[in-house]
Amino acid sequence: MAACVLVEAGPNRAMSEFEWIRKYFAPLATSEGAVGLKDDVAALSEPEGPLAITVDTLVEGVHFLASDPIDTVARKLVRVNVSDLLSKGARPSEALLSIAWPSGRGEAELARFATALGDELSQQEASLVGGDTVITHGPLVLTLTLTGVCEGDGPVRRSDASPGDDVWITGDIGAGGLGLSAATSGQEGRWLDRYRVPKIAPLAAADMIAEFAGASMDVSDGLLADAAKLCRASAVQLHIDLDRVPFAEQPGEVERALVLSSAGDDYQILFTADPAIRAELTAFAADEGLELTAIGHVSEGAGLTASYQSNAVNLPETLGFEHDV
Amino acid sequence: MAACVLVEAGPNRAMSEFEWIRKYFAPLATSEGAVGLKDDVAALSEPEGPLAITVDTLVEGVHFLASDPIDTVARKLVRVNVSDLLSKGARPSEALLSIAWPSGRGEAELARFATALGDELSQQEASLVGGDTVITHGPLVLTLTLTGVCEGDGPVRRSDASPGDDVWITGDIGAGGLGLSAATSGQEGRWLDRYRVPKIAPLAAADMIAEFAGASMDVSDGLLADAAKLCRASAVQLHIDLDRVPFAEQPGEVERALVLSSAGDDYQILFTADPAIRAELTAFAADEGLELTAIGHVSEGAGLTASYQSNAVNLPETLGFEHDV
Repeated sequence: MAACVLVEAGPNRAMSEFEWIRKYFAPLATSEGAVGLKDDVAALSEPEGPLAITVDTLVEGVHFLASDPIDTVARKLVRVNVSDLLSKGARPSEALLSIAWPSGRGEAELARFATALGDELSQQEASLVGGDTVITHGPLVLTLTLTGVCEGDGPVRRSDASPGDDVWITGDIGAGGLGLSAATSGQEGRWLDRYRVPKIAPLAAADMIAEFAGASMDVSDGLLADAAKLCRASAVQLHIDLDRVPFAEQPGEVERALVLSSAGDDYQILFTADPAIRAELTAFAADEGLELTAIGHVSEGAGLTASYQSNAVNLPETLGFEHDV
Repeated sequence: MAACVLVEAGPNRAMSEFEWIRKYFAPLATSEGAVGLKDDVAALSEPEGPLAITVDTLVEGVHFLASDPIDTVARKLVRVNVSDLLSKGARPSEALLSIAWPSGRGEAELARFATALGDELSQQEASLVGGDTVITHGPLVLTLTLTGVCEGDGPVRRSDASPGDDVWITGDIGAGGLGLSAATSGQEGRWLDRYRVPKIAPLAAADMIAEFAGASMDVSDGLLADAAKLCRASAVQLHIDLDRVPFAEQPGEVERALVLSSAGDDYQILFTADPAIRAELTAFAADEGLELTAIGHVSEGAGLTASYQSNAVNLPETLGFEHDV
């Protein structure tokens, strides 16, 4: 229950937030504990395992362009949260949405946002249980809180990589960065689509991570920057063989490989696993249709190293956007 | 894990969000499952009862003034969420904070915000387990997600009022509205303080609600507006005796009583209870130091009625800000 408004904000105030919630978001609230968003709090469902929780905020003009289609913004909002959970071995469960909606954005756009949000949550097997809708005089700010049910004993952490482990990545690397370039230079096409709506691993990735991973995290600040975080958290040395990284576009030369592996927004899962279970892991991934590539190994020591065409690579000091944990 | 930034935002980008989190918020993350905010998700603690969850967003210029001291904003953010939980019979447990921080607000202010947030969460026996910090070009937007452990079988709903029930209110009514007037007209003093940092019921209110309440909700959109929602949700008639309402300032006349009971931001708890347990309820409240007043009754029928000095009152069509559920 938000505080009262100091200042009424433009023509949209004519349709009260209560009406908005009832009309657009209540239909998405299908669980019993959500009571159709008609009450002050939601009751979380009794989970079948330990509960993980994450929150992400997207700001217009910072994380997406004001001109981006609102349905892609809704899908991105869900996926960046789902990516966090999957990388920890948890399947998405229940969501709370908070919107600071600019007074200049119309009702039709809110309707499109809600439809896409509902569809995406449903694809991710999650449901909306609560939220808050307020008016802002500034840019659109969207916050999604998402719970997830851990398939194992708890979230798989960044800190449990062991010397001798293989290093694995799901999907491909670099599409987010290619899309960011496309977005900022006004180009349409598949990279822009990948930037607007990241392609994330399917839900079965949660089961894979829970069963096989040592350390795990999602790659959102660039492969190298995130790999560096994982090896710091685990107090190990981590080596990445750039020739084996499944780049979205062939780099051709080491400089380009570094650019693609330093760009953000990939939302793939970087994890380590004992080589003894390599066959089981790859069989599991094949059965579930998970794209999976071994790209390196963990050893005693500290720091991130990389090679390209069998030569050691001097890694740039700044490995990516370190804007977030 | 938020998406990559399209646009870097001013001088504060020099201090990365990762640094901010580590420096100011990690010290507040004391539970094991928070892992010092160093990982992508938090593990929620194993609760001792059903879990409730709520989220509230405060926007600068809408829910607080840009000139409000940042420590009062932090406390308000926590209290509006706590108020929701208490009114449902749940005690606050774990919090996730999402901040869209304007590039023009400095680090010292963030430090003050974090200190006040930590202190307030601690007073409310809650701890920070996760969050997201991003930069915005617009106003400050703060979103707090808060879990609560239900003292009963689940959240006490708005919909379970029964004919014959007494209607009760905690604390006093009208201070939020008096404070809003003070804030918008630039007056200092106790009402302004009450608006900036609402006085909410103590934590023992959760136990009282879980044990004694039929229907319950917090009063944030004005006593009359919220009472109307409660009676709609419960499909009953609800009568409020304005002479018995514990107004923060004596109204003197019916028009003033209506103003005070139509203003928002009181964050008190409105609930119904069987008259058969009246003595037990008042004894419990006295033991726990909870301010409690009987202000009306529930009967068969529909709609809200009110009286003042034994006369029926014509209720205005618009009873308060209906900006939120």
